[in-house]
Amino acid sequence: VSGPGVDGPPETHLKISDLHASLSDPLLDMMNFLNEIAERHPDAVSFASGRPLVDSLEIESVLSNIRGYLEHLAQRGASQEDLCDVLFQYGPTAGHIREVIADWLRVEEGIAVAPESIVVTVGCQEAMVIALRTLFATDRDVLLVADPCYIGIAGAARLLDIPVTAVAEGDRGLSAADVEAAVEAERARGRTPRALYLVPDFANPSGRTVPAEQRAALLDVAERCGFLILEDSPYRLVSSSPRLPPLKAMDHGRRVVYLGSFAKTAFPGARIGFAVADQQVRYATGRTGLLAAEFTKVKSMITVNTPTLSQAAIAGLLLECDLKLAEANADKAQRYDQTLGIVIDELDREAEAGSLAGLDVSWNRPEGGFFLTVNVPFTADDAALHRAARDFGVLWTPMSYFRHGVGGERSIRLSTSHVTPDRAREGVVRLARFIAAEADRVPRADPPPET
Amino acid sequence: VSGPGVDGPPETHLKISDLHASLSDPLLDMMNFLNEIAERHPDAVSFASGRPLVDSLEIESVLSNIRGYLEHLAQRGASQEDLCDVLFQYGPTAGHIREVIADWLRVEEGIAVAPESIVVTVGCQEAMVIALRTLFATDRDVLLVADPCYIGIAGAARLLDIPVTAVAEGDRGLSAADVEAAVEAERARGRTPRALYLVPDFANPSGRTVPAEQRAALLDVAERCGFLILEDSPYRLVSSSPRLPPLKAMDHGRRVVYLGSFAKTAFPGARIGFAVADQQVRYATGRTGLLAAEFTKVKSMITVNTPTLSQAAIAGLLLECDLKLAEANADKAQRYDQTLGIVIDELDREAEAGSLAGLDVSWNRPEGGFFLTVNVPFTADDAALHRAARDFGVLWTPMSYFRHGVGGERSIRLSTSHVTPDRAREGVVRLARFIAAEADRVPRADPPPET
Repeated sequence: VSGPGVDGPPETHLKISDLHASLSDPLLDMMNFLNEIAERHPDAVSFASGRPLVDSLEIESVLSNIRGYLEHLAQRGASQEDLCDVLFQYGPTAGHIREVIADWLRVEEGIAVAPESIVVTVGCQEAMVIALRTLFATDRDVLLVADPCYIGIAGAARLLDIPVTAVAEGDRGLSAADVEAAVEAERARGRTPRALYLVPDFANPSGRTVPAEQRAALLDVAERCGFLILEDSPYRLVSSSPRLPPLKAMDHGRRVVYLGSFAKTAFPGARIGFAVADQQVRYATGRTGLLAAEFTKVKSMITVNTPTLSQAAIAGLLLECDLKLAEANADKAQRYDQTLGIVIDELDREAEAGSLAGLDVSWNRPEGGFFLTVNVPFTADDAALHRAARDFGVLWTPMSYFRHGVGGERSIRLSTSHVTPDRAREGVVRLARFIAAEADRVPRADPPPET
Repeated sequence: VSGPGVDGPPETHLKISDLHASLSDPLLDMMNFLNEIAERHPDAVSFASGRPLVDSLEIESVLSNIRGYLEHLAQRGASQEDLCDVLFQYGPTAGHIREVIADWLRVEEGIAVAPESIVVTVGCQEAMVIALRTLFATDRDVLLVADPCYIGIAGAARLLDIPVTAVAEGDRGLSAADVEAAVEAERARGRTPRALYLVPDFANPSGRTVPAEQRAALLDVAERCGFLILEDSPYRLVSSSPRLPPLKAMDHGRRVVYLGSFAKTAFPGARIGFAVADQQVRYATGRTGLLAAEFTKVKSMITVNTPTLSQAAIAGLLLECDLKLAEANADKAQRYDQTLGIVIDELDREAEAGSLAGLDVSWNRPEGGFFLTVNVPFTADDAALHRAARDFGVLWTPMSYFRHGVGGERSIRLSTSHVTPDRAREGVVRLARFIAAEADRVPRADPPPET
């Protein structure tokens, strides 16, 4: 395609250094590198992609969910003209499916909130941006995150120039005592921790789950120290293992802003997420209102409304399964659990009598979700990933991508969500060989001094 | 609905002053006031709503557009699995319908750009946020806007704490000389105008169109002064009056970032917009790339992807009408033009022999679009709007909502897009009576000193 500028004056050149600093974030380059390497090695077994399964979805079923939602509205008195407006016009900025979502949260998650406390968003990512832009007012307001941490929240903070402080996750997930210590350290520096971002169930990237007693303790700390918890839990309903209650269901002091996603329980392409913000806001006049109303104002400046077809498709799906998403996802959940189990079993087998025998390699054992952590005896950086892809046909993600500051150099994230059982078995064999080769490589790369 | 907190510790109260400053923007309160007054007076004739017409849309036709786009992909070799991924998975962040949009821009708007220069966004609003977040790096980077100006760009700037400088629009739209003077004034203050936001055709709110020779002059100034033009033109294709070329079609120096919207040519609920950013960016390494790639990085931090159903619906519509959106919108365009014409004719009639006779009232005469400006002999503020709604059954928008700083107190915006011809006639009669009553009211409100 030839464009203007061919015969005109010199084209406009902008310097990257003149653009916003978030664009120079190494995070973005890392993700690009990952995408490029996946494209260059299409035959590699990918433990890098955290995509959900969508292969059982049919186009007509989604269209029929849209129709189903409109029929639901018609049964409740909507005219043909109303339905036309629902689907085609600008709608309420906070979304038109808040009642369905509120019903579902109550039935399936034990979270009892009014529809007015919900803001429907363009994926959970927009909910994060909205929550951060609303709650963070000065450059001394700090966001606490688990370390390692989901890339999306780090990106949202970077976009808005919000400082992030990482709190190291232990083997049993984030500990309340560690969070409290981090809050005190921040205060001693003159900064205010405004919120803690947390994925309590099967976290991305570590795969860890916060135990029940730590959930209560985290709520206590939030109450005592006066910060909010941003609870994000996209993987809860796609595992058949027993579920702990979400923090939001235990949130008697309204310390939790719940960030929801239907990307894994319905489909990512819909881009439907939501925030629950039932906290009270006190205005200068003394009047109070819901934090969700402030979120809605911010949303009006980012995307105006959430696309109507997507909202209708998700509401239709929720209604079709009688608000039982876990049940509707039972088959998929079993497949996710199976593949995760296979990867852990195969790692065990490789350690007992295979390529990993005798090597200093360890991994955690999540009971569900898309991810697990493998600790390896070498630096798992881009160069190592390149060798894994080229020489062994296996892809993974360096855990350092998810760390703030240093750490994670000898750790990798395996994602098991988007690989078949057979490919997963083959993938672990390849991975084990790669790890053995790297372990063997270490002394050569950095030889001990000769004596 | 009863929630947590009922029997627990005191609920969390946040102070509005602790939240982000953008939430205290009077703009948001004004828009809320407008929505509230519209709700309280459902029988009033509304010249306030800028909604497009959607009444001819049918649900099945949108679903068949989605199918049509998938068939188009299948004809070009996509497998059933590919189609499933297109509709259900995370997709490319920049969108999967860029080729269709590039074809349409070339055919219908004379804008020849590569698909890689396009980023599909969640409505034009997200395109604005992305453009501003990418291009504005320091707090001395200033955005120039026409005054009065579209509320969406003011909101995006507020969200990102970007300073805005308004340049007064003349009767013939924004003048290049005025823009150049504003650039020089900003530079003298030590600030850098990075971009000028502009709606060249049938502007919201004024209804004005920038004449052809001023378009060339604005491009010249941008070239000479080294800023970009953010061209936003959502109302071009929904009028049957002759169209001037968009600035982007004349942009030999690549000074224009084009912000697109399908809200008025397809339907707002889809929330499909896009940005064309074909400028070159030079990296520290000397390598160059497209500005669109930087936009894409920013988008990955806001909404990750644009919803797939919406993208497919819009691409399907574009393909169905052979990339001729103006033709597909011909009936609607005629209706918009007709209602706008009726409002102007009725205002003329009221001035000649009706309620406006002898009053100092004037209005502009746009040849298309959704809006016109009426200058009135009183302060057209919220209190006046309240009286218009309560006592005369007519709604409009104070022009001061769209002004930066002072100005516009004696001016109103009429929107003619979402009212039937009969209601429009009735509305002007009511409006004229209201204006006459207000004009009559002025001396009483502020009596001259008795002598």
